[in-house]
Amino acid sequence: MRIGIVGYGNLGRGVESAIRQNKDMKLVAVFTRRDPASVKIKTADVPVLPLEEAFKMEDQIDVMILCGGSAKDLPEQTPAFAKHFNVIDSFDTHARIPEHFANVDAAARESGKVAVISVGWDPGLFSLNRMYAGTILPDGKDYTFWGKGVSQGHSDAIRRIEGVLDARQYTIPVPEALSAVRAGENPELSTRQKHTRECFVVAAEGADEARIEREIVTMPNYFADYDTTVHFISMEELKRDHGGIPHGGVVIRSGKTGWEGEHSHIIEYSLKLDSNPEFTSSVLVAYARAAVRLNAEGGFGCKTVLDIPPAYLSAMSGEELRKTLL
Amino acid sequence: MRIGIVGYGNLGRGVESAIRQNKDMKLVAVFTRRDPASVKIKTADVPVLPLEEAFKMEDQIDVMILCGGSAKDLPEQTPAFAKHFNVIDSFDTHARIPEHFANVDAAARESGKVAVISVGWDPGLFSLNRMYAGTILPDGKDYTFWGKGVSQGHSDAIRRIEGVLDARQYTIPVPEALSAVRAGENPELSTRQKHTRECFVVAAEGADEARIEREIVTMPNYFADYDTTVHFISMEELKRDHGGIPHGGVVIRSGKTGWEGEHSHIIEYSLKLDSNPEFTSSVLVAYARAAVRLNAEGGFGCKTVLDIPPAYLSAMSGEELRKTLL
Repeated sequence: MRIGIVGYGNLGRGVESAIRQNKDMKLVAVFTRRDPASVKIKTADVPVLPLEEAFKMEDQIDVMILCGGSAKDLPEQTPAFAKHFNVIDSFDTHARIPEHFANVDAAARESGKVAVISVGWDPGLFSLNRMYAGTILPDGKDYTFWGKGVSQGHSDAIRRIEGVLDARQYTIPVPEALSAVRAGENPELSTRQKHTRECFVVAAEGADEARIEREIVTMPNYFADYDTTVHFISMEELKRDHGGIPHGGVVIRSGKTGWEGEHSHIIEYSLKLDSNPEFTSSVLVAYARAAVRLNAEGGFGCKTVLDIPPAYLSAMSGEELRKTLL
Repeated sequence: MRIGIVGYGNLGRGVESAIRQNKDMKLVAVFTRRDPASVKIKTADVPVLPLEEAFKMEDQIDVMILCGGSAKDLPEQTPAFAKHFNVIDSFDTHARIPEHFANVDAAARESGKVAVISVGWDPGLFSLNRMYAGTILPDGKDYTFWGKGVSQGHSDAIRRIEGVLDARQYTIPVPEALSAVRAGENPELSTRQKHTRECFVVAAEGADEARIEREIVTMPNYFADYDTTVHFISMEELKRDHGGIPHGGVVIRSGKTGWEGEHSHIIEYSLKLDSNPEFTSSVLVAYARAAVRLNAEGGFGCKTVLDIPPAYLSAMSGEELRKTLL
């Protein structure tokens, strides 16, 4: 399986490493909008090429993994690449998925390729688990908790405040809320009752820390609805203690069965991730395999994780899977 | 969706209740090998019929849910019914799945129907999770723990000992093993280190309890490889405190990503079930929907949970799913 990577940030680097773990896969090229000479990749003897070169390589690449951002890159790149390649993206702006799906579907139907969008863990594996659990226990309630982990969006929002040099924001589930859900109590939880936010901020010398803290905790959408703690630390401490990009979370379905709903059940799916981008990359790579297989069987159009038969992700045959793993 | 139930034990009763929770489903009939007059079901105005009657009702039933046992019923019933109906079974003898698959596949290919075998939670949801997690983290290790829950097979084994009137056996994961796995320590665990077994036994008056206990804890395959505790209790206590059929378990994948495997990840899927048969029934019913849909699109042959696109389980359309749940 011959793979191209579009974009070489955290996600692109993660995909490069993930390809190395799968013996049936080969990285053909990394495509970038930057000056290719300025991009050093880890795989020996694989070229870094300008983005436009990709479209001359249709017969050399089985699937393109698009590693750009959801805000600006993917809404343009995914349909453009789906006109020529099987593609995978990690589009994660939940509210805009239907629109993105329609655009990508039109492109992939025209080319006869398979495009799998919104691959990763949320959207992605968490969506899958919400769907399986909700279908199996229709009389029930869903809970999704995120963290403990770094939210890039919230960290960025803090960095835009005047006097802030750098910042890292952790989203943390409230332990009491988690316990109540796991105990099958089906609590009604407000935003504030589900998660807290903890911020580590490096302020410029002489900046007014009280004002910065006030601006953070009252920021609408991002922090105002949460209990937020702010710690001011040095740049050195930030780099030393908060350099990683861990994340994770939990999807829990609590539901009832029986003629009168007399029995309770808890289905829980949880992730504890040392590196959010590398884990997401590993999911992308598994779905890249599925896209190539589906297309080889004549499949085409836009798909999500909900549409892909699980066995298509695996390098094992159906027979092996049934024998060893079912 | 018109459903028939074959067999009215714990599983059949669970399916009956689960159908009631799904508005797009209707129970048409329950089929039994017993005298139909002796079987009282809960759904009003639905007939209980002799097994043979089923084969006259091909045009009245969209899918048959087979609720017999894996040892004797399903190896015969699933292929026989797949010649006439879309079918779902919960065949759970792991070692014989390839053989069962081949028999059912031949029947379902002949009839052009869809047969989904080995549906439930293990095999079933646990298999799915082993597959997704193993594919996403190829450099890793799988752990499956069962319990705390009642093992019917082990309870039956105790009941066969001379002087035992009744018994209930609980399989319990060893907490230290679970903690080590969750901490990403990737321990090598022997059978004894993973689970303990706890038995509640009602002995006949005057029976030799020391001998019964010895026969239990030394029983090959069932108990000899485990640390087993035996409690003798009265029939009254057994009925009062051990009447339920709870179960559950955990599938954990611990794996590494990064160029040099420098980041660790834990994927965990867990079930806590008040009623093992009712939960299994709820899974069967969700896959019944998928079987009917797949067949309506021209699909046929034997399938497992690994082959079924997740969205086929849900009563929601692809559009709704993408909008509300992805």
